[in-house]
Amino acid sequence: MNTLLLDSDDVDEFARLADVIEAVEQAFAAFERGDTQMPAKSYIDLPQYNGDFRSMPAYLETDEWDAAGLKWVNVHPDNPAKHDLPTVLGTMIYSDPETAFPLAIMDGTTLTMKRTGAAAAVATDYLAVDDASSLGIVGAGVQSYTQLDAISEVRPIEEVVVSDPDEERVQEFVAAYEGRFDVRSGSIAAAGNCDVLSTVTPVEDPIVGLEDVGEHTHVNAIGADAEGKHELSDELLQSARIVIDDHEQCTHSGEINVPYGEGVLTDADIHGEIGELVVGAADGRTDETGITVFDSTGLAIQDVAAARVVYENARATDSGYDFGLIDTDQ
Amino acid sequence: MNTLLLDSDDVDEFARLADVIEAVEQAFAAFERGDTQMPAKSYIDLPQYNGDFRSMPAYLETDEWDAAGLKWVNVHPDNPAKHDLPTVLGTMIYSDPETAFPLAIMDGTTLTMKRTGAAAAVATDYLAVDDASSLGIVGAGVQSYTQLDAISEVRPIEEVVVSDPDEERVQEFVAAYEGRFDVRSGSIAAAGNCDVLSTVTPVEDPIVGLEDVGEHTHVNAIGADAEGKHELSDELLQSARIVIDDHEQCTHSGEINVPYGEGVLTDADIHGEIGELVVGAADGRTDETGITVFDSTGLAIQDVAAARVVYENARATDSGYDFGLIDTDQ
Repeated sequence: MNTLLLDSDDVDEFARLADVIEAVEQAFAAFERGDTQMPAKSYIDLPQYNGDFRSMPAYLETDEWDAAGLKWVNVHPDNPAKHDLPTVLGTMIYSDPETAFPLAIMDGTTLTMKRTGAAAAVATDYLAVDDASSLGIVGAGVQSYTQLDAISEVRPIEEVVVSDPDEERVQEFVAAYEGRFDVRSGSIAAAGNCDVLSTVTPVEDPIVGLEDVGEHTHVNAIGADAEGKHELSDELLQSARIVIDDHEQCTHSGEINVPYGEGVLTDADIHGEIGELVVGAADGRTDETGITVFDSTGLAIQDVAAARVVYENARATDSGYDFGLIDTDQ
Repeated sequence: MNTLLLDSDDVDEFARLADVIEAVEQAFAAFERGDTQMPAKSYIDLPQYNGDFRSMPAYLETDEWDAAGLKWVNVHPDNPAKHDLPTVLGTMIYSDPETAFPLAIMDGTTLTMKRTGAAAAVATDYLAVDDASSLGIVGAGVQSYTQLDAISEVRPIEEVVVSDPDEERVQEFVAAYEGRFDVRSGSIAAAGNCDVLSTVTPVEDPIVGLEDVGEHTHVNAIGADAEGKHELSDELLQSARIVIDDHEQCTHSGEINVPYGEGVLTDADIHGEIGELVVGAADGRTDETGITVFDSTGLAIQDVAAARVVYENARATDSGYDFGLIDTDQ
């Protein structure tokens, strides 16, 4: 038996966002129903290299399929400057739950961007106004692209405002989407006054205030992924309907971790988990006005669900590289 | 940058046992010095498939090198009968600790056998009589081969007695080593009266008693890997100098887990960890007579240390398959 090897280009091609959004939505629902296994991430901290590794195993079961796998990923912020490598490098093993055979091994870096964009799209679908046509993006790094790609799958986005102090990155972003969208550089307030806003920065001091957003803006808060990080002001969060992906992760390392830790936000301020919206246990948007916020930390089941999409789409076209990793005759 | 893919044959070729034994010995020493990070194994239990997955990340630092990686492995006992697949299927990701780049992905099944054999060899080197020339093996499954291969690296083994109720497996084993060793089928007592004995069975009721072993036999107890499993009688264990690999793992899932749980054995009966013997904090064998037992559960650092050997040996001869898994220009 062979293991299918899928590189970054393969993942980019076969993680079709419409499919990944559907799979991630199913994963959120499975999580809410208790049909997932997701042990806490294991960390290896390497302060001598200013980096860490994270092991993210997961299993999930939907009405139609089940899937298992593991993402091995890291954060090494010195990589770009010192080694000409990305800060984050992921490797995903996608396994058959019935036999544990590794069906595929794929680039987990591109996969992470796709499933993160897909999560924002699922939240946007439940929380943005129906006719949302404008999207603001704060932070023009690698994650910004899949935000637009994914969110435009669920809303008729026409106008895009991207805000980043690095004008070169902004121009790269604009160049990538010119012609397909009305895309321009703008201030944080110009981005925040769109129907939907995605924030994808690693800041530790909030850069988006209540005064920066519109009266019905839905905000996908993507950037915070560690204790101490947050992008939105306390005032903005306190005024918003807050939806999270996972209580444990969000209160420890998500957008709300700092105000939650300080007691500025409590459980009473959390409207619900995204899975509750998907299964109908909690409301999404109920009024034409009102700010909503989705705190996305990223769940291992999103990776597994997205990996399944990549594997199935690649197999359907005989793509990827078949490799006999494990001798199964032993 | 490319990731080196190494299949079962590559791992078999490049996990040269002399090198792996040295690396595993260094890993045990690093563990004792506190120069390792080894988060508890994460389990995903899938009773509907009678199986489970385990995630084993680790980092270790020796005086000469450091290494990081993760093994994703399972136990699916129905695999052979239902799917014509091995019960255990491992995939190993070997990563550069400084950048987290996945240097290699390799078969973790063969790797597990090699590092397990190497651990027994390290223990045998510290605990068997110096001139040990006979090796008994109880259980003629896949693990039995690397026991002989590895132990014969550290002692002048000439005579081998293999004991297994499955005569076909015994004959396969004998055929594999005829000519190189004086190898024959025998009873458990015949195997146990050798200078060194390795037990590699999954039994839950002990099959080796005190009366089955010689007066200076060193026993490598390899088989027990879960709560409830043990191969050696309480009486044998109580008469032996017991060395373990890790207190937490051995008392929960190793050879001693059952008597330890019942209070038949206590911490006072444990002579020390193998790493203590390596660094000189505890004695190995001190007398020509006396039974010794090594309780081996298998540590994630053994996998990482062995993976480093495979990678370095393969790279040195430009072997393996270079694959551009992750686009590092992103």
